[in-house]
Order: sequence, then structure tokens, then C-alpha cells
Amino acid sequence: MASESGRKPELRKDLVSNHWVIFSPARAKRPSDFKSKAPANPDQPQHQCPFCIGHEHLCAPEIFRVPPDNPDWKIRVIQNLYPALRRDIQPSSSHNHNLVANSVLDGFGFHDVVIETPLHSLQLGDLSPQEIAQIFLAHKKRIEQLANHESIKYVQVFKNHGASAGASLSHSHSQMLALPIIPPIVSTRLGSTKDYFDQTGKCCICEIQSEDLLINASTNFISLVPYAATFPFEIWIVPRYHSPHFHELDAEKAVELGGLLKLMLRKMSLQLNDPPFNFMIHTCPLHGDGSELAYTHWFIQIVPQLTGVGGFEIGTGCYINPVFPEDAAKVLREVIVPESE
Amino acid sequence: MASESGRKPELRKDLVSNHWVIFSPARAKRPSDFKSKAPANPDQPQHQCPFCIGHEHLCAPEIFRVPPDNPDWKIRVIQNLYPALRRDIQPSSSHNHNLVANSVLDGFGFHDVVIETPLHSLQLGDLSPQEIAQIFLAHKKRIEQLANHESIKYVQVFKNHGASAGASLSHSHSQMLALPIIPPIVSTRLGSTKDYFDQTGKCCICEIQSEDLLINASTNFISLVPYAATFPFEIWIVPRYHSPHFHELDAEKAVELGGLLKLMLRKMSLQLNDPPFNFMIHTCPLHGDGSELAYTHWFIQIVPQLTGVGGFEIGTGCYINPVFPEDAAKVLREVIVPESE
Repeated sequence: MASESGRKPELRKDLVSNHWVIFSPARAKRPSDFKSKAPANPDQPQHQCPFCIGHEHLCAPEIFRVPPDNPDWKIRVIQNLYPALRRDIQPSSSHNHNLVANSVLDGFGFHDVVIETPLHSLQLGDLSPQEIAQIFLAHKKRIEQLANHESIKYVQVFKNHGASAGASLSHSHSQMLALPIIPPIVSTRLGSTKDYFDQTGKCCICEIQSEDLLINASTNFISLVPYAATFPFEIWIVPRYHSPHFHELDAEKAVELGGLLKLMLRKMSLQLNDPPFNFMIHTCPLHGDGSELAYTHWFIQIVPQLTGVGGFEIGTGCYINPVFPEDAAKVLREVIVPESE
Repeated sequence: MASESGRKPELRKDLVSNHWVIFSPARAKRPSDFKSKAPANPDQPQHQCPFCIGHEHLCAPEIFRVPPDNPDWKIRVIQNLYPALRRDIQPSSSHNHNLVANSVLDGFGFHDVVIETPLHSLQLGDLSPQEIAQIFLAHKKRIEQLANHESIKYVQVFKNHGASAGASLSHSHSQMLALPIIPPIVSTRLGSTKDYFDQTGKCCICEIQSEDLLINASTNFISLVPYAATFPFEIWIVPRYHSPHFHELDAEKAVELGGLLKLMLRKMSLQLNDPPFNFMIHTCPLHGDGSELAYTHWFIQIVPQLTGVGGFEIGTGCYINPVFPEDAAKVLREVIVPESE
């Protein structure tokens, strides 16, 4: 099949993540034939759902809602009922240079949930750009609150859509996990973008060459398949202006970003058969010394779940992607989203 | 539920992988209640299987078999019909200090399959310690052959058992992928074990404190749950003697290792409801300068597939493990494997 597609396998290193990915056309069907075998298809009955409007008493405590103090809410930010980390224990403070002593921390942190709509039947891609903007602005507001805690080093915003992507409830929601450490992927990214900056004087995300990889563009954002995409049909949405922290986003740009995210979710759903997916907001750590601001640049990563992970990936941290990024970008660029949507 | 188990969440850093893992009892059922919901349960009909004895003509070319030149073979090492990397293209050789130019390599490499038994009905855990030893010795022999290629930097041996662990054929087999790069997890491990060595003068795997984490031990090997296990019921099998390269294994120790691996697979199958699993052999890169030999130490990692990966893990590289390693080790230590097996 390699000869059919005219491509040989290739290893590419992502300059942002510093990870190698193997592109292996011999293992692929045609890029346009990729479909999810397990559509997300949420079907949990509404009367049991704690995230639906009117069921607020089934949830852990609320942090804030949008609009404030309104029973007819559009978004609620609440505590996670089963938090991975706990806000009610003391953050660890002692640090020394002993490797063994530094290998454990008490599980202090915040694990919140953002209920993205009061209605069970709507998914994120069904909302308007303005409604999606309000969700981003809720993330922003909550990050600003969490940044007041000196012990919180990083806030990971993420969404799991579909059971096989990790969602335990089908009502549209995202999560925020505020961590007392800088996680490994973030440390590696900082090291990698710093290397690029030291060598070129530029931010490597500002410098992304998007021609063949571009999906869509708006005034302030582009969506693209990254040069060394880890997963087939992985999508990044990147600000065209240099911006280290996601929570610098303003209300006007949030609507534009909401429109581009909606377009990507609609294209993914139409082209790939409503796949389960994850999205992650990658941003700059909190409380840095400022030197990192020149070479960090926030972006959104969207990963449809189309292939599994096996022993090779667990063992090496290298991924095998059967779809070349240029091919995935072309397929996604050409998806026609009906006007009525 | 945290109060029931008497445990608070904890973050632990693995000294070998240098990665943080969040242990979160609030999200767990009791450790003894963990069961696979999707047993591996291979059920592919035998008449279609290319790996069965008599179907050799359906396979890509053979590299060697055990015993040699015998139609009644026990093990076959063959080329993968859909290789991720190709042995028939030139390895990339040019290297310079330009980050962008160094971010792509032609996909040279070797992707082989080890058919572990001629019989479709047997899985790895059904084989005798002596038969499993022969499989390890086939891996060893093939690594020694691959090491003759100067461009091959690392050989990853791995096994995917069960469709959701990445196996496309149910006939028992493992895979070997010989890479022209040192993969990211291996580089990180080398950096981490070097740091420990520089600080203590010791190999951190030789130093593993196994009391609470021990599952079983034999003369030359121990099986344990690592201190910061990434996945629930993850198991490591570690030589008790310092040994950088897996391919130093001799025939006598291979039988002992086969016995301990068999015991772990039987315990996992009994306790966790025959879960899909991966195993990986972690070893020292080929062609080092020798300085790394003091602080690298091969081991086998076994990962039963019990939980999925979501946006948090993809975004951060941090994993959330609901089962404390001490609890998982106790459960696995106490599994009774029937004598007749």
C-alpha cells in the first residue's frame, strides 16, 4: 500500500513537544476513509444526570455560575465530586536536593468541572460561537482565581467527549485540574521551545509554517494539523499573535475562537463519524520568572480517538501515525459544513 | 470513599521514569474489586490465521525459526507484513545543529514479529517456563543481529495481548521494532537514572526497596508493583543482579524469568478477569559510549488494560492511578494459582 500512496515512512520530530512520531503509510487505509468505529453517541437518560438544570442538588458545591446568581444559568463551574486532588489538605512545602525525599507530595490541588450547557441534548459543537466564548471565559476566570494560590503551578483545562475518551457523564462538560507541579509534557515543551528561542530568537509557535498543514483561518487564529501530529487527524488551534497565557484571552477574541472551535468540531464529526475526542488547552505555567514568556504560546489541541495505544507507544513514548499531516489537513480543509449549521 | 480507605491522594515521582503519578483513592473501588470489563478472549477462527503452523505462506519473509530448519517449528521470527519502518531504504546520515533540519528522518528501521507458539489455542501464560525461555532467547538472538546495524539505536520488544491493547491478530506473538533514534521515554529514563547515579553512586533499579511492593521473588528476579506505578496493577520484573542489556540474558536465567513471567500472567488473569495487556522489555540503548552501563538496568513492564486515557493524561503526561502500589502488590501477592497449572 506504500506504493499506492507514493509515500515512504518518515520520522518527524515536533519542535514544540520534542517528540518523534513515526508516519507509516503502509499501515493506513486512505486518509479519507478514516471513520470512528465507536461514535461518541451520548445516550445517558436525562432524569439521572446531575449536570442538567434542576439537578444542582446532586452535584458537589458550586464555585460560580454564568450569569451570576441566576437560576436560569448557562454555565456552572463546580467542584468535582470525585476529585483526583483535594483542596482541603495542606500543600507540601519542604523541598531539598535529595531525589528520594522529593519523590512524594501530598495530593493538594483543585479538580473542577465546567458544565457547558444546562441542556442534556446539546454537545459543544451544537453551541453558538458566543456560547462557546462564554465557556472559554469561564475557564479564564477560574484560572485567574486558581492563580492566587502560590502552590498551584499549572492548570490543565481538558475535555473528554465520549466514554472511550474518558467521559463518565455524557452531559457536555470540561474539567480543570490545578496542580502543585509542572507536569512532564509542559516541562518538556518549555525546554524545547526555549532551545528554539535560544537558537533563532523566535517563538517556534509564532513561526509555524502552515501552508500544507492549514485547515482554516480567522483574523486572529488558525487551525492546522501539526507537522508531527501524534494522532491521526489531530488538530491545533493557535493564536496568530504571540500570547503565553490562555487566560489573556479577551471577550471579543473568545467569540472568534469559539467560532473556529465549532467549525473544527463540526468538520471532525462529519468527516470522522462523530468520534470520541479530547481537547486540551496548553498554556504557560503560572508564577514563572518571566523569562519563559518570550517562548511560550498557548494553543488548543484536539485529538479524535481513532486508534488505540499499544505496547510500542507505552514503552517508547513514540507514536505511530498512519496519516501524514498534510493528507489529514487536506481532508479536513475540504469538508463542507452545511450552511444551516 | 477516601475516608473508607483511610488514604489521602498523593503525588509520587518515579525515580526511573522521572514522571509524576497522582494516586487518587477517591476515584477507586476497592483494589480487590478491579476486573477487566473487556477480557482479551481471543476468538479469531484458526483457518484464517497466518501465524498458525502450516500457514507460513501467508506471512512476510521468515528471519529465523526455532529449532532451525525444522518444519515442526516452535517459534518463528518473521518480518511484519505492515511494517511501521522499512528495512529497504537508506538510513538517514546527515546531522547538523539546525533544529529544523534535524526534525525529519527517512523511515529506516526493522519491524519484526515473533510468533510465540505454532498453536492458535495457546496464549503466552499457557506455555511452560522452558517454552517462554525460548521466546526470550529468540528476542535476544534477534537483538544481537539488529545490533550489527550501526544506524539502529534502540530495539523495543513489546507484546499486545487483546484487541483493545492493540493486537490485530489473536495468535500469541510479540513484536520488535528497531529504531534509528533513541525514543523519548528511553532518553528520559537514562537522564533520570544518571542523576540518581551521580548523586548516590548507585543504580536506582538495583536499589529498589521492595518490601511493600513485592509480589514474588526467585533466585535472580523479583516481580513488584513500582513505587509510582503509572497504571493500576502495573507489574515490573527486575533482575536482582545489575545488568544493562536484556540481551545479556543466559539460557538458565531465561527459564527462571519464564517461570516468573508465567506466574505474573496467571495471577493477572485470575485476579483481573483475563485483561487485555501489554508488556515491554526496557533495556539500554545500543552503541553507547559505555558510561551508561553503570546506571542502566533492564526490566520488563507489564500493563493490564483496566482504565482508559483521557484529556488530562494526553495534555500533561501525568497519569491518575486509583490504586496505591502497596495495595495492588498485596492483592497480587495473595492470588492463589492452582497447583495443576
